[in-house]
Amino acid sequence: MSAPDSLLDQLVEALQCLPGVGVKTAQRMAFNLLERNRPRGRVLASALKEALDKIRHCDHCRNFTENELCSICADTSRSSNQLCIVEGPADVRLLEANTDYQGRYFVLMGRLSPLDGIGPKEIGFSQLETRLQSEPIEELILAIGTTVESDVTAHVLSELAQRNHAKVTRLARGVPVGGELEYLDPGTLMTAFEGRTQY
Amino acid sequence: MSAPDSLLDQLVEALQCLPGVGVKTAQRMAFNLLERNRPRGRVLASALKEALDKIRHCDHCRNFTENELCSICADTSRSSNQLCIVEGPADVRLLEANTDYQGRYFVLMGRLSPLDGIGPKEIGFSQLETRLQSEPIEELILAIGTTVESDVTAHVLSELAQRNHAKVTRLARGVPVGGELEYLDPGTLMTAFEGRTQY
Repeated sequence: MSAPDSLLDQLVEALQCLPGVGVKTAQRMAFNLLERNRPRGRVLASALKEALDKIRHCDHCRNFTENELCSICADTSRSSNQLCIVEGPADVRLLEANTDYQGRYFVLMGRLSPLDGIGPKEIGFSQLETRLQSEPIEELILAIGTTVESDVTAHVLSELAQRNHAKVTRLARGVPVGGELEYLDPGTLMTAFEGRTQY
Repeated sequence: MSAPDSLLDQLVEALQCLPGVGVKTAQRMAFNLLERNRPRGRVLASALKEALDKIRHCDHCRNFTENELCSICADTSRSSNQLCIVEGPADVRLLEANTDYQGRYFVLMGRLSPLDGIGPKEIGFSQLETRLQSEPIEELILAIGTTVESDVTAHVLSELAQRNHAKVTRLARGVPVGGELEYLDPGTLMTAFEGRTQY
């Protein structure tokens, strides 16, 4: 086999940093961009560079932002009595798009996972404690997942909140809206049954 | 919903130029790059920019290359008696990786498709004719697909070759290696049966 053109190989290699993209997909992407999509490819290259250069963490809530404070922390019309804890920036987007929550956020950027070297420091534990002590936070809303690591994280955070006299709530668990009982996993069904509410 | 940070939005929008990437996947890619993969993201941005700036079509065979001639056209040890016609650069890679073909290539960069505005000019018809007239090509190998458009393209190319007294061959059609008859589609089975060869 003769030597392939190296810039193309470098591009195919580089595209594999994207999640879920292997050699085959990366090749398809590279050929597609080069054959049919050069202008949009250029836009992608510069958008990517600019985002990586300029997007940083909000000083206050650790969410992604281009400024010192993200748009939510900078918004004086939002309530400071509620603080919603999420695992990542994507969760903030989801909640903002689908709920009418008007409080503040704190983004853990992960979950406690000692085996992966993610401890209290990595998820901004002391920064959160400072906020609990200095701001009029009445309710800490744990909008985090239900895996083992997330449950441990939730437990540690709820102890922190209680030490600082804030109420702790977490998202309701139960039957998904539009879901049928038949297809529910046993854990969710048990949780939903135990947590049944007045009709 | 408060205004999302715009560079992030631009990145998510830009990532959707990749084939098979929608909003959800683009968001996941953007967050993954920003959270965990910034160095590799930078490599991707520069690899993409450089590839788009420098990769062009080979003057001789229309394949992608960084130079005037691609490495295959520039390789004087390869035979000029055989010319393999493929639809895209990915096909050249596949053939180079999996066959011991030692002739030359010509890359159509598409297939005849009048409805999409792809005519003889777009697939380099006259450039191919010049090569057939000026080079000692004895065999034109049609390594192109089996869709309707590809079949039409093959037919037109075979007429061109015959006008220029070159033999025309195409890839064998039949049962895939390792395949079972049971799972074969009727068209392939019929073609394989009609094209049966001496054992």
